[in-house]
Amino acid sequence: MHTAEKQKISVKEAIDYQVVTADEPWEELAEIIRSINTQQAVFFVDENVFRLQDAFIARLESLVKRPILARVPAGEQSKSVQNWASLVDFCLEQGIDRQTPLVAVGGGVTGDLAGFVAASVLRGLPLIHIPTTILAIVDSSIGGKTGVNHSVGKNLVGAFYQPRAVVSFLKVLDTLPDSEFISGFAEVLKYGAIEDTGILALLNGRSILSLRKDPQLLKEIVQRCIKVKARVVSEDTKEAGLRMILNYGHTFGHALEKVAGYGCISHGQAVFAGMVAAGVMAQKLGARIDNSLIDQHAAAFVTRGFFDHFSIEDLNKAMQSDKKVSRATVRFILLHEYGRPYLHPVNDAEFITSVWEESFQKMNQLCS
Amino acid sequence: MHTAEKQKISVKEAIDYQVVTADEPWEELAEIIRSINTQQAVFFVDENVFRLQDAFIARLESLVKRPILARVPAGEQSKSVQNWASLVDFCLEQGIDRQTPLVAVGGGVTGDLAGFVAASVLRGLPLIHIPTTILAIVDSSIGGKTGVNHSVGKNLVGAFYQPRAVVSFLKVLDTLPDSEFISGFAEVLKYGAIEDTGILALLNGRSILSLRKDPQLLKEIVQRCIKVKARVVSEDTKEAGLRMILNYGHTFGHALEKVAGYGCISHGQAVFAGMVAAGVMAQKLGARIDNSLIDQHAAAFVTRGFFDHFSIEDLNKAMQSDKKVSRATVRFILLHEYGRPYLHPVNDAEFITSVWEESFQKMNQLCS
Repeated sequence: MHTAEKQKISVKEAIDYQVVTADEPWEELAEIIRSINTQQAVFFVDENVFRLQDAFIARLESLVKRPILARVPAGEQSKSVQNWASLVDFCLEQGIDRQTPLVAVGGGVTGDLAGFVAASVLRGLPLIHIPTTILAIVDSSIGGKTGVNHSVGKNLVGAFYQPRAVVSFLKVLDTLPDSEFISGFAEVLKYGAIEDTGILALLNGRSILSLRKDPQLLKEIVQRCIKVKARVVSEDTKEAGLRMILNYGHTFGHALEKVAGYGCISHGQAVFAGMVAAGVMAQKLGARIDNSLIDQHAAAFVTRGFFDHFSIEDLNKAMQSDKKVSRATVRFILLHEYGRPYLHPVNDAEFITSVWEESFQKMNQLCS
Repeated sequence: MHTAEKQKISVKEAIDYQVVTADEPWEELAEIIRSINTQQAVFFVDENVFRLQDAFIARLESLVKRPILARVPAGEQSKSVQNWASLVDFCLEQGIDRQTPLVAVGGGVTGDLAGFVAASVLRGLPLIHIPTTILAIVDSSIGGKTGVNHSVGKNLVGAFYQPRAVVSFLKVLDTLPDSEFISGFAEVLKYGAIEDTGILALLNGRSILSLRKDPQLLKEIVQRCIKVKARVVSEDTKEAGLRMILNYGHTFGHALEKVAGYGCISHGQAVFAGMVAAGVMAQKLGARIDNSLIDQHAAAFVTRGFFDHFSIEDLNKAMQSDKKVSRATVRFILLHEYGRPYLHPVNDAEFITSVWEESFQKMNQLCS
């Protein structure tokens, strides 16, 4: 008689962590490091932050007896398996243990790379994000996505790994280049579009760069974005359902990034164009949304003619290999109206092509 | 005034999975694959299993429409960052998606390597272990430890990543070499020592190899081991406390493996010698345990003179860099008596040296 013995394993995990946002939350950071009870910490610091914020870095290092610092080259091409392997070597050769926190100081590139190192050294180091760009503060540092790029596609190698804390120093944004500041606002607009429409209202008729001179308003907007992201990732950690709404604009956007080649288009430009395209698609499907709340910011992100050289055939092919795509069907997040996202599967390549064409024309008009 | 906004993120995860053990649990495996709802699966197959079990592999492949197979070289040196990267490339180049299960067919090497690939491709593929060695069936396939080796130490690069299921075909053990069969019994003896002392009683006065001719008894012993492992990892997934008892014999054992060079000593030999040493240490500290229940199996694992060329200085140094070591102190799992393990920190190198010396002498006597 065939009898199979079955033994059940139950693994439960509950992780709580704080996202702290202020001009200079030094006390909060010091408290978090104290709670880890360590004499040493590894700091992965974006090379631009290292160059422009020496007093900030020195003060960070002074929080532990033995700071171990590695500079991380800026730019999307830095998110490679090779760089991951070098940083893993670096950590292990420094003789760290499982109580040694890895502190990621930089934008999305540094955070994604450091996150995957933290996930995979000694089966997990305590990870602290200190995001220094708008994008990293409102988006990439929150929710546990880590990873590096692969020749087959972006972010294809990585893990879900939650940080111990996210501590944002808004003061550090002072040295962020305008282009980076703007780029992060694609995600800000996204949170407005998919959930907190008040964000779109706060930005209506206002230029994005004007916020550099209005730290109070900037802080309010940033904190509202974090609230949306925190709610969504708390409800859906592993991107099984709800979390998909965070991909608004990203299915188009990732295709643009892939076809342009990483580094030739910013993530913000790609996501912004993706949201314009999602707006076009939604309208073609009959939704009544006032796309102007997004579209009015076009000139901050793109210039006339920017998309003229993109091959729509290549873009459609790139969408097929995106990991958010299930089999042959491409799944878009669209809006019934602002604040009401839904999943819309499309397997009509001609329809997608017409959306690309129309949105490229539209962006040229918006930038003229 | 300084006000830091704090936003709490709560991530909860509950993973349940089955460990199925039988002579040939084909129905159970088919049901698990059906539940993933996929047309394709990636199989990482140990090269020896591939060579010796062609009918078994063919039947596994027939469970999905599109089987994608990669052979994994046997041996500890196969657990490298380079092999991990090649297998990641292989998966991504085959155009898999997040619903594609990765099925690891082999021993601990294949399972650890495949587990880390599954953990890090597309931020996580469904992982199914089909362990084909005693060691993998009772130990390495259960509990979510994955990883590869690094020049600094063993298993230093990897993640905690739980499988979707573990399905053991005891029939496949028929082609396992005697040396591998014996090696796995170091872990079997360990479960007996730390918790289910009935296992030691079942093996008392019996040679390990005799179990090859007694499949019923083998099944009983294997299932009792799985029960211990399942209980321990369910209570302590991330090795924060209880799970440490599974390291009985391993602090010594890992040092032996590191000094010998991977591949020059089997994991079983190292762990067995480690348990002999742990027994010696416990007795020196006054415990009254009948070490003969372990020691009687010495001749199956080691030969006279095997340890004569090891440098105890090197062994002590190697223990310092083991990741289970916290700072300068070396932490051993010892037994008050069988079934009652406890953590014993030691920072007296001379004492450790005397334990090494005495246990090497003892093993020589046991093998003469």
